[in-house]
Amino acid sequence: MQIQTYPDGFDLLLDGRLVLRHRSDAPCLFIGQGDARMDMYRGNFDIEDYVIERTPLSHAEVSGTGDEFEVSLCAAPGQPARLTLVISGSHCDGVIFFNSLDPSINRIWLRVVAGKNEHVWGGGEQMSYFDLRGRRFPLWTSEPGVGRDKTTEITFKADVAGKAGGDYWNTNYPQPTYVSSRRYALHVETTAYSAFDFRQAGFHEIEVWAVPDRIELTARPSFPGLVEAISERFGRQPPLPEWLYGGAVIGLKDGSRSFDRLETMIAAGVKISGLWCEDWVGLRHTSFGARLFWDWQANEDRYPGLPQHIAELASRGIRFLGYVNPYLAIDGPLFSEADAAGYFAMDDKDKTALVDFGEFECGVVDFTNPEAAEWFAERVIGRNMIDFGLSGWMADFGEYLPLDVHLANGVDAKLMHNAWPTLWAEVNARAVEKRGRTGDILFFMRAGFTGVQKYCPLLWGGDQSVDFTRHDGLVTVISGALSSGLLGNAYHHSDVGGYTSLFGNVRTAELIMRWAEMAAFTPVMRTHEGNRPRDNLQLDQDPEILAHFARMTQVYVHLVPYLKFLVAEASTRGLPVQRPLFLHFEADARTYAIQDVYLYGPDLLVAPVWQSGKTEWSTYLPEGSDWIHVWSGRTFAGGREATVAAPFGQPPVFHRAGSRFAELFAGLRNL
Amino acid sequence: MQIQTYPDGFDLLLDGRLVLRHRSDAPCLFIGQGDARMDMYRGNFDIEDYVIERTPLSHAEVSGTGDEFEVSLCAAPGQPARLTLVISGSHCDGVIFFNSLDPSINRIWLRVVAGKNEHVWGGGEQMSYFDLRGRRFPLWTSEPGVGRDKTTEITFKADVAGKAGGDYWNTNYPQPTYVSSRRYALHVETTAYSAFDFRQAGFHEIEVWAVPDRIELTARPSFPGLVEAISERFGRQPPLPEWLYGGAVIGLKDGSRSFDRLETMIAAGVKISGLWCEDWVGLRHTSFGARLFWDWQANEDRYPGLPQHIAELASRGIRFLGYVNPYLAIDGPLFSEADAAGYFAMDDKDKTALVDFGEFECGVVDFTNPEAAEWFAERVIGRNMIDFGLSGWMADFGEYLPLDVHLANGVDAKLMHNAWPTLWAEVNARAVEKRGRTGDILFFMRAGFTGVQKYCPLLWGGDQSVDFTRHDGLVTVISGALSSGLLGNAYHHSDVGGYTSLFGNVRTAELIMRWAEMAAFTPVMRTHEGNRPRDNLQLDQDPEILAHFARMTQVYVHLVPYLKFLVAEASTRGLPVQRPLFLHFEADARTYAIQDVYLYGPDLLVAPVWQSGKTEWSTYLPEGSDWIHVWSGRTFAGGREATVAAPFGQPPVFHRAGSRFAELFAGLRNL
Repeated sequence: MQIQTYPDGFDLLLDGRLVLRHRSDAPCLFIGQGDARMDMYRGNFDIEDYVIERTPLSHAEVSGTGDEFEVSLCAAPGQPARLTLVISGSHCDGVIFFNSLDPSINRIWLRVVAGKNEHVWGGGEQMSYFDLRGRRFPLWTSEPGVGRDKTTEITFKADVAGKAGGDYWNTNYPQPTYVSSRRYALHVETTAYSAFDFRQAGFHEIEVWAVPDRIELTARPSFPGLVEAISERFGRQPPLPEWLYGGAVIGLKDGSRSFDRLETMIAAGVKISGLWCEDWVGLRHTSFGARLFWDWQANEDRYPGLPQHIAELASRGIRFLGYVNPYLAIDGPLFSEADAAGYFAMDDKDKTALVDFGEFECGVVDFTNPEAAEWFAERVIGRNMIDFGLSGWMADFGEYLPLDVHLANGVDAKLMHNAWPTLWAEVNARAVEKRGRTGDILFFMRAGFTGVQKYCPLLWGGDQSVDFTRHDGLVTVISGALSSGLLGNAYHHSDVGGYTSLFGNVRTAELIMRWAEMAAFTPVMRTHEGNRPRDNLQLDQDPEILAHFARMTQVYVHLVPYLKFLVAEASTRGLPVQRPLFLHFEADARTYAIQDVYLYGPDLLVAPVWQSGKTEWSTYLPEGSDWIHVWSGRTFAGGREATVAAPFGQPPVFHRAGSRFAELFAGLRNL
Repeated sequence: MQIQTYPDGFDLLLDGRLVLRHRSDAPCLFIGQGDARMDMYRGNFDIEDYVIERTPLSHAEVSGTGDEFEVSLCAAPGQPARLTLVISGSHCDGVIFFNSLDPSINRIWLRVVAGKNEHVWGGGEQMSYFDLRGRRFPLWTSEPGVGRDKTTEITFKADVAGKAGGDYWNTNYPQPTYVSSRRYALHVETTAYSAFDFRQAGFHEIEVWAVPDRIELTARPSFPGLVEAISERFGRQPPLPEWLYGGAVIGLKDGSRSFDRLETMIAAGVKISGLWCEDWVGLRHTSFGARLFWDWQANEDRYPGLPQHIAELASRGIRFLGYVNPYLAIDGPLFSEADAAGYFAMDDKDKTALVDFGEFECGVVDFTNPEAAEWFAERVIGRNMIDFGLSGWMADFGEYLPLDVHLANGVDAKLMHNAWPTLWAEVNARAVEKRGRTGDILFFMRAGFTGVQKYCPLLWGGDQSVDFTRHDGLVTVISGALSSGLLGNAYHHSDVGGYTSLFGNVRTAELIMRWAEMAAFTPVMRTHEGNRPRDNLQLDQDPEILAHFARMTQVYVHLVPYLKFLVAEASTRGLPVQRPLFLHFEADARTYAIQDVYLYGPDLLVAPVWQSGKTEWSTYLPEGSDWIHVWSGRTFAGGREATVAAPFGQPPVFHRAGSRFAELFAGLRNL
């Protein structure tokens, strides 16, 4: 970090990049006060800020030399300083510490210098837009919404039914970190509500609804180096478990019938590594239909003799996975235990806060209480799940911390809301670690925030609609993988066939097949029956789908040697398995805004068919390599668009000419 | 106006009412800078403000004595003043002049003291909410929207089709003036975009996107006195023309067939004062259907021999009315004339700005050019319309001034946009006045803004949907009449049967009949065939509707002696014909938020049936009088709710016991 002072301001440089430019008539920092209304409706939020004050801090006084500077800021010369920045760090890694001198300040807006053709990525796991430039992104963990496009009928209906339609920026996993095409990353260390506004030509504006602890800046000469540094900062995932390489994880929630259905799939040639039954805890029947029973232990009624089944599957190399979330239903035995111990978040009247999840109420285990977190990790996950024999689970939710509860650590729930996904991940990771099963047990989460990287071994892209829509369908998973991947989440996957079926929207054979084609080229291939299994096509209902799916699991297994190489790269360098094209083709700026194509490791380019009714597909191939279409063996030049036939079973995938895995990739043609 | 100074601030009192309270830790004024994005889509606007600065002006220095004070304001002691207020006026009428000392300021926010149980009304013609408390109201003339309720399918479809769904605050006629239940009115003299925010408990916040010229305050001991003062301030309408008292104005746009259809109505006993044919200018055929030809002169093809028809009707006491708007279609002869004279608003390239109205383009006559305004008044309205024989017209539009045109007066179109309805009204009024026909020719407008009162003799409530919906149906007309009436618009009316039929929404017999029942108790009873006459029921298509309508016109004519009394009251005292209950029952605070019932003058209470499927209707009757149900003669006590039978033809109407018109009202029972 380098600071240059001028009579009326200063410039801050990071490894030669101008990052902050402050002049008295163009200040870089604004402070003030807001009074926000924040209402939650089952994980969807209606938030509106009333900005009472937004004062430009026009006058800056810089002191210090060498490695640490202090910038004292006020509205005008002669006024007392309202905020100081302490800036320190090395040439290419810097930290700006914020120190408020005025307790009324609860909003800051920082302008970071932006280039005209600059691209920005990140912001957590962004489902609609990978390149964030030109839009504003509030960063607040929530349901992502159903439809997520205010021009669609489904979004409208979801909004009317429960304020649940969402918008382009809603995500289970936001993170106030971005990566710039100027080859630096900026991270805001705060759990407060924040927003990145990339709509202005000359600056990015960072808004935080608190004085943040600090802003961290990291520059590297190349994108891979930058991603590696980011991964080091936020923590690396353990490698994928060996057992996973056996094939797909099959999601069924059909009680003990699930085992029979699994046999049908095996008989059809499906390669299987695990059976995932989220209904292992039993069901609750509501007027909305069957829901899971939110008390985390095996249900003997729904899965009689489950331990024997688990052992039998294990003997054939197939693991059994379950489900958990951070709530406890009031009518389950764990609730009483936690309640007696005082492990729940409290309400205004100092009673256990109860959250309505639709005809049943739950307590929120207070993970800011170390004893409660330890109890959940040991008593619930350790004993009821790991010791019982689960090899993994969906660690669902994390986005629903109500804003009016009282927490053990005394911090405002509005400031803990974003922190919750990471606390939830930590509870899961600790339980696994205590049993010495890190790298063997695989749990997966949709919610995230800063630091989740360190604890959560696998993201899943959340609850897409069962369709090909631009903002809630198959294609959104790619953006989710690429954006979260840049921030150090090496492993991403999604529900094959999508999840959310509402308002008559049901999945088609085509959707399941296109999704499976993509999933074969992701680190984890896992199916889901969806929220309404009976109304929606399942892969074992149609021999054509099942045969296609079996073929795609064979593709997945065939690629395991390459996947193991990618896992090693993730472990050593922090590079995500799914990568934006520019990560390895930085010289080709045409790749910077591409979000429907990805590199699967350095050598494969995957362009999933994400629209219906297609028989061929076109994709841009980066300049700097020739590309071999894996199904035809045909060579295409980089730097231009290629069009290939895309029949079912042959997703548009290319490998880099000269790859050391070329022989393996060529083998795909023989499957 | 009285000012009391304190060591850290001041209080401003208006006839004993605390209006402004300024303390250094709770300032009443904030200033700053915004950069708004304002996009227009055929009269619907997408507006978003980026507030760059919002600085509390915490430090105030008051000087002056007696009748004039100056308040010098800055952010902190020792800082130069950024704005001064000059406050002057009598005990109960005051003016706050704004004087900016900083050219960067383009936003102000003023906090006015609010009482806990205070109600506020006004804001122009507000269609959704009469009592404005608890909501924010942007004040910007625009299309009101179709559906105007984000939870309805029609609003959703209108939004998707053309950003045309609207919301509760969208109105053709906004005005930055409100009336408080604390018996004072506040008016902001500005044409800039502004907003009244009544959501806070302790203050109202007035936001203006410019430094306003001034804010005017008026207090009176009683509501009628206050309304009278407001009417004096903004100007009074001429009395309604005598010919109108003959009955309803029938809207037909069926070319020369309109005359035959009129005869059918007359034969059915309909009392008629005028025939209004908006298609008198001829049609243009587009892919959306038939539109009017926007060149303002009689069309001989569609209305052959129109002068003879007009004379024939006049001999029977029936006037003929037409249609005009402030645009000229590029393919009409008037366009060339205006273009040659340079009467149009110009675009960025200094060429005539053309606005697309859907398969045809128009020029915008620049009313800031006195010659252009005069030309439109004399050449277009005077010669083509008045001299031709029209006795009135719909003076449509006024809300569409594009924000990127260049105007003759050199003022930014963003600042002239709100001024346009009043300029448009003035052009019409001047044309009428020049012919000496004020009080005889009746034009009616939907658009409005400050000062429209002085020029426009009659408002019409705009384009309601053909339904009973809460935010775009029959009931909204009542709120429109009451809110605009408080601000000095004595005369209001609406399209019997509504206007907008889109997305399969068509009118029912019930809707037409309920609307006619209300219209009989408004100063002008006028029908409209709607935007899609062929798809929608017309009153002459069904003998039952026609008979019902005939009866309601007889009710209207029967009440003329009373209506004339109300017109006299409007002329002398500025009281609107349709009045909120509290205007005459101020002691009964239960009336303050009622918006679906009105007083028709001092002695009649009208509670229109505004929902479908009703056979009886309940309404609150104000305390302080007994009330006689006009159809049954039954007496009801005030201060409680009354329920009456409401068959078709007998709208729920009550007269005040002891009214000097009691005999007239009793006569309604014999119709």
